[in-house]
Amino acid sequence: MENLSFAMNGGEGPRSYALNSSFQRSAFEAQKRLIDEAISENLDPTMTFTSSSSKDLITIADLGCSTGPNTFIAMHSITEAIKNHYRRHKLLPAHQTLEFQVFFNDQVSNDFNTLFKNLPPNRSYFACGVPGSFRGRLFPNQSLHFVHSASTLHWLSRVPKDIVDRSSSAWNKGRIHHTDAPKEVGEAYEAQFKEDLENFLNARAEEVVGNGLMALQIPAAPDVVADDNKEIDPGRVFELLGSSLIDMARVGIMTEEKVDSFNLPIFYSPVKGVKAILEENKYFSVEKMEPLNLETFYAAPNVYTFVSLYRVVMEDLIKQHFGGAIVDELFDRFTQKVVEFPDIMNLRKLKIVMLFVLLKRKL
Amino acid sequence: MENLSFAMNGGEGPRSYALNSSFQRSAFEAQKRLIDEAISENLDPTMTFTSSSSKDLITIADLGCSTGPNTFIAMHSITEAIKNHYRRHKLLPAHQTLEFQVFFNDQVSNDFNTLFKNLPPNRSYFACGVPGSFRGRLFPNQSLHFVHSASTLHWLSRVPKDIVDRSSSAWNKGRIHHTDAPKEVGEAYEAQFKEDLENFLNARAEEVVGNGLMALQIPAAPDVVADDNKEIDPGRVFELLGSSLIDMARVGIMTEEKVDSFNLPIFYSPVKGVKAILEENKYFSVEKMEPLNLETFYAAPNVYTFVSLYRVVMEDLIKQHFGGAIVDELFDRFTQKVVEFPDIMNLRKLKIVMLFVLLKRKL
Repeated sequence: MENLSFAMNGGEGPRSYALNSSFQRSAFEAQKRLIDEAISENLDPTMTFTSSSSKDLITIADLGCSTGPNTFIAMHSITEAIKNHYRRHKLLPAHQTLEFQVFFNDQVSNDFNTLFKNLPPNRSYFACGVPGSFRGRLFPNQSLHFVHSASTLHWLSRVPKDIVDRSSSAWNKGRIHHTDAPKEVGEAYEAQFKEDLENFLNARAEEVVGNGLMALQIPAAPDVVADDNKEIDPGRVFELLGSSLIDMARVGIMTEEKVDSFNLPIFYSPVKGVKAILEENKYFSVEKMEPLNLETFYAAPNVYTFVSLYRVVMEDLIKQHFGGAIVDELFDRFTQKVVEFPDIMNLRKLKIVMLFVLLKRKL
Repeated sequence: MENLSFAMNGGEGPRSYALNSSFQRSAFEAQKRLIDEAISENLDPTMTFTSSSSKDLITIADLGCSTGPNTFIAMHSITEAIKNHYRRHKLLPAHQTLEFQVFFNDQVSNDFNTLFKNLPPNRSYFACGVPGSFRGRLFPNQSLHFVHSASTLHWLSRVPKDIVDRSSSAWNKGRIHHTDAPKEVGEAYEAQFKEDLENFLNARAEEVVGNGLMALQIPAAPDVVADDNKEIDPGRVFELLGSSLIDMARVGIMTEEKVDSFNLPIFYSPVKGVKAILEENKYFSVEKMEPLNLETFYAAPNVYTFVSLYRVVMEDLIKQHFGGAIVDELFDRFTQKVVEFPDIMNLRKLKIVMLFVLLKRKL
């Protein structure tokens, strides 16, 4: 099966990622203190290239950057934190200055034209766009000092192949995700997540210099979700979307087979699963791993905003499978279901764990 | 006056740069031997970063790359020439391999989405896009080993301001270029060209490592054009376009003022002018400077192809000034004039000099 390639909605219209990424931004706000700490506790100034006698170069990559503005806010915070760290500890000789080169990476289908048009004019870094999947190599050997990737690693590189195989015990009939599915379906998702995260780590291990840092924000699930109406599994959102599709198949808008062959390539791994994969990797040490508190930063103001947040990230994927004609009706039906189940918009109940992870490349 | 920012036509339609850049490609074919020679005679393997014990990194930038495919052909040739050079002279220890990172640069308004989509899947380099004007800094200090820029430096960063100033002796009334204009107009173009080329060289001087190379293809004019029907000044093409605009103003499609305030920011410098600017620059030595023989590589097959070659590079600029509504009629009228003066399509007569220049960054 071919690897998936899709992207957040481009442009700057009402359904663009640029205007519908406040949830992702709230997670960045929540991690800001942790990034500052990570830099001041872990940044090794001897790892940077000294390209000449007068300049010291720090290279940063944002993997899965989409079109902005979140990536610009993140890159600004990181470069400022590094500058402050150097200044505070007088890490640069008086005649030297720091230069930054920032690599903005996303899938080839990402709208890089919009990203480039919106680059902050007063940025203090040289900007580059890097198209391609971050599951594989994107950069030269030992060429990066700091890697950031936020809300990207829960996307799988492909739908696990067994779950669309009718002859497999993991065939995921009548659902678009593993929530409430037989355990084989969840296991197939989990195996794919593990393979993808390992590929990500192994590619970065080649690219990040010794002592280089990776700050990752990984959407995950609690190890246990209380089975009462006080806690809601994050997969419930996909279940509502899936049941909207099934309703549409029932009234003949599409075939049941079409829905059966569609599965979301998203996995909110239990926290302990993420931890195990990271600790098993021999190239990076886990310097920090803690959940961000999103509640204080984000609450969807209303159902339309909530639905938009999901639409902007899923629309491209849905169009690729079902065509564009069904999208409006699908999200109308999904909106209805959210209205009937408003608790799902409440982050105190919907148990998405946004894990902040700081990794350091071993020497 | 603000600097101009415009780009070649994007996408892949019938009027895209991607499908209308055969002239520019012919120039690259003609320079291929010169690039190979430049690399085998001048490439200093000690200038590259040794990022680790096992990899040697060579960074290449194509400045003004547009959307491809010419830039991909050029980057392939350059990386192959470098690989062959290393292999032939056994410049790499047995356990080392070469890595390439290629930076594709053009204006922010360039269609990078199309560029990225068409990147050769089997390329042997890591690819980045770098948006912004090459008159200023784009890359960190001493971070480039090889710079290529083809058919870009005859574009000025702006229209010389005196030529649109009614009170100036350089006011360019009734023309869109300096061809056949009073000498003050030509001098204003020349001064802008000099400033722009110097800015380009000074920015690159910061970015290119010692002994690093720049291979430039600069469209220029002969120092003297014979004043008979055997030779045609390259500015004649713009004169035909300008007279088409004036005809349209005469029949009331636009005002005369609108045409007077439009001038092409293009200058085919006489060869000796280019030579003087390059030799004056204290950061680069001129290793080679010779005209490419385009005649053997390119002849416009017919008038429509010839007009398309100009349309694709000028359309954005014309739309910005006149709006999009006049473009079709303008190029219809221009086509008529080319039909009446077919010698202009003959490269034996139209005296564009495509200068190949090899510069080396002094240590």
